[in-house]
Amino acid sequence: MAAAAGAVGPAEGPLLPGHSGGRRPVCSRPYFVVLMVFAHLYVLNVLGLLLFVHLSAGGGDEEPGESAATSAQGQPPVPAQSPTGLPRFEGIKVGHKLKVELVPNKAHFMKTLSLKPLLFEIPDFLTEEECKLIIHLAQLKGLQKSQILPTEDYEEAMEMIEISQMDIFNLLDHNQDGQLQLKEVLTHTRLGNGRWMTPESIREMYAAVKADPDGNGVLSLEEFKQLNIRDFHKYMSSQKVQMSELVRNSQHTWLYQGEGAHQVMRSVQQRVMRLTRLPPEIVEHSEPLQVVRYDQGGHYHAHMDSGPVFPETACSHTKLVTNESAPFETSCRYITVLFYLNNVTGGGETTFPIADNRTYEELSLIQNDVDLRDTRKHCDKGNLRVKPQQGTAVFWYNYLSDGQGWVGDLDEFALHGGCLVTRGTKWIANNWINVDPNRRRQLQFQEEMARYVREGGEAPSEWTVDKSYSDVHVEL
Amino acid sequence: MAAAAGAVGPAEGPLLPGHSGGRRPVCSRPYFVVLMVFAHLYVLNVLGLLLFVHLSAGGGDEEPGESAATSAQGQPPVPAQSPTGLPRFEGIKVGHKLKVELVPNKAHFMKTLSLKPLLFEIPDFLTEEECKLIIHLAQLKGLQKSQILPTEDYEEAMEMIEISQMDIFNLLDHNQDGQLQLKEVLTHTRLGNGRWMTPESIREMYAAVKADPDGNGVLSLEEFKQLNIRDFHKYMSSQKVQMSELVRNSQHTWLYQGEGAHQVMRSVQQRVMRLTRLPPEIVEHSEPLQVVRYDQGGHYHAHMDSGPVFPETACSHTKLVTNESAPFETSCRYITVLFYLNNVTGGGETTFPIADNRTYEELSLIQNDVDLRDTRKHCDKGNLRVKPQQGTAVFWYNYLSDGQGWVGDLDEFALHGGCLVTRGTKWIANNWINVDPNRRRQLQFQEEMARYVREGGEAPSEWTVDKSYSDVHVEL
Repeated sequence: MAAAAGAVGPAEGPLLPGHSGGRRPVCSRPYFVVLMVFAHLYVLNVLGLLLFVHLSAGGGDEEPGESAATSAQGQPPVPAQSPTGLPRFEGIKVGHKLKVELVPNKAHFMKTLSLKPLLFEIPDFLTEEECKLIIHLAQLKGLQKSQILPTEDYEEAMEMIEISQMDIFNLLDHNQDGQLQLKEVLTHTRLGNGRWMTPESIREMYAAVKADPDGNGVLSLEEFKQLNIRDFHKYMSSQKVQMSELVRNSQHTWLYQGEGAHQVMRSVQQRVMRLTRLPPEIVEHSEPLQVVRYDQGGHYHAHMDSGPVFPETACSHTKLVTNESAPFETSCRYITVLFYLNNVTGGGETTFPIADNRTYEELSLIQNDVDLRDTRKHCDKGNLRVKPQQGTAVFWYNYLSDGQGWVGDLDEFALHGGCLVTRGTKWIANNWINVDPNRRRQLQFQEEMARYVREGGEAPSEWTVDKSYSDVHVEL
Repeated sequence: MAAAAGAVGPAEGPLLPGHSGGRRPVCSRPYFVVLMVFAHLYVLNVLGLLLFVHLSAGGGDEEPGESAATSAQGQPPVPAQSPTGLPRFEGIKVGHKLKVELVPNKAHFMKTLSLKPLLFEIPDFLTEEECKLIIHLAQLKGLQKSQILPTEDYEEAMEMIEISQMDIFNLLDHNQDGQLQLKEVLTHTRLGNGRWMTPESIREMYAAVKADPDGNGVLSLEEFKQLNIRDFHKYMSSQKVQMSELVRNSQHTWLYQGEGAHQVMRSVQQRVMRLTRLPPEIVEHSEPLQVVRYDQGGHYHAHMDSGPVFPETACSHTKLVTNESAPFETSCRYITVLFYLNNVTGGGETTFPIADNRTYEELSLIQNDVDLRDTRKHCDKGNLRVKPQQGTAVFWYNYLSDGQGWVGDLDEFALHGGCLVTRGTKWIANNWINVDPNRRRQLQFQEEMARYVREGGEAPSEWTVDKSYSDVHVEL
């Protein structure tokens, strides 16, 4: 249960201002390790944010005052095209088709696949030759495993965090019935420490550390108190983990699309600009293209591409420029553009298990031992699946509108994953468009980037790139 | 089954151009009677439109060409605030609250209740005194039964229409299995001729006209062919109909809101303008306020406030001005603003049975003898119910956006009804905002109305008013 404690740790700073006496400072190395591991393991439900928001804001989701704050008090909610506003498509309704002009002398059609999230499909976005070239460039550059297993640094950091057993229990006990059901534990994916937890694996773990003597799969507060976190740790590190047991079983690399890049990479970026209608300065200063290979047996359990936004959240891409210290960090991927680079022989669909669901309830994702987020077992039970088709692009918004022409709350319906590849290999690429939900910070970032370009330097590309892979950033 | 035939009749003109030889001309009195009766009985699924669209367009909903036509070929779908465009709110997400300024020195909050349809709730839109005054004005003016039973004119018109028994069968046989299930017949509410059909009432009718000898509730083509439409008619007219068996069991009247009207009526109209952010010329030339009283036992089964839009559809409010002959007519109510004028002792909720449903499928509204549209029996099973609260306004869009800042397709999710009033009386008022989905016709209408006003005449209010009640239009 130490992982849970870890998630809570970073919140301590703001909770106890000027009280860092016997504790490690917020900027210590273990702290960054925790953040970085989180960035990788981030799937659903940031436990720490939960505690932080609970304790500091005291709930009150439905209070007029609070929601008015996020929609800037009575200004027109009409999607005004303000000078600094971001264009955002209307979905109209599922099946709606819109003609878009992406390249000269060719019409593309953008079809609405769902409204929650706002998701579109554009067939023939890339040509067969472009797909092949992108795969080739990625192979030349070399791919790395998408998920690294927790290191000892991580374990070390976990042990450092102080949080009472009782607090962890209360955070996990979602329905507040004084017991931990399996689904309540499953929801907190981070507890798995990189491993994908299933009802079976949790039962096994309970058995190994003798957490659930009556074996009913439910932990009472009494049972939970008996649990020794060191035993739990020992068990976790003793387990041999197969790639297929991870949250993500794939390999990937990053391809540069900026000035000097291969003409096809440049052209794809131009097309993404035309597609999303976002200003060039936003698209150009977003993450490079991520090319992903799923071998037979590969998968990526359902996850969010970006994290929730609170006043205390920093965006990875603007963090260095705005030079603010924030207890949380997320990648602020406003839009995901996903390209299918080949036709997959078997499986490998992209699933949106709760697309256009009437309501979102985290716990209802897991029903009677069926975890809808599990893309190895339950892809067939989700609401929407997109079959890979070479050259097709899909794109969706990971954030809602704030009603004022800018990025609002995370769209929880954007949960998605890569279904098990049952036969052959699957190649895709992701273009993430990063926008800071804090408009001021985004503008400051853009000005800074423009200044770099003016002064003749290359834009510091490592800012916008997953830092843990900076060693493989030999520009192609 | 003659009613079904009637619905199909008007389509004959365009289907058989220049072939009106032995038939009544399109503008004959019976034709208008049919249209008027339809306007009243209009609930779901315009049978005639179905046939017309089937035969003339040959299906093809998903063809890029066709859908591109409705979204004006490649123009920006971004909700641009074009000079002639209509503002439209963003819902953001269910529960989102937006501060709106409707009256000086008071903040109102508009809460998103659903995205499909785009539906909002504004508490305290009217004061208690305003509610009481509106009820008082309506009582002074006098209320009329909201639904009139079919007249002989209607029956006469029905008999005139030529359509083969086989064509009717095919139109009703939604799933094309060669049999008419009860739910297929129930879907075509118009067959009820003003009466609300239930599985029981259809079984009774079958028994009376000996339509279903094997009594299984399903009509085979053989059984259907044996059916004599005159017997069906005779049975229908012989039935004594209770108010509670009608589609709508209420009384209503219309209150003028224009120049010279009571200051409260003026003020409410101003507030509706501020709320919807629509141009004054649109709100001012919309239908007057409809005040409705539901006594104990009253209801209004789920229905659409406006009809689907095809190139051949005329809007009631622009029809006379644009002087076009069109085979179909609908009221083109872009927005419904509904006010609760009192607190109801028991029942009387407004139900949106399929709000935010993932998909819309007409037949799935009726499952195992449970008709979700039935607001006397099944209000508890719908997705969303709004409890009457004196002074609260709810408003929703009956049409989707066309992606170009104008009115698009009918939003089928806007299906709604008034639940059975189990105790006490329920008073509501409706402000419908009429907009022609054909932008040119709407602008032509506005110019014409402006000309009338300039020339010192009152805007011809009867144009915008339900014609069948023109005799009660003593302006208050």
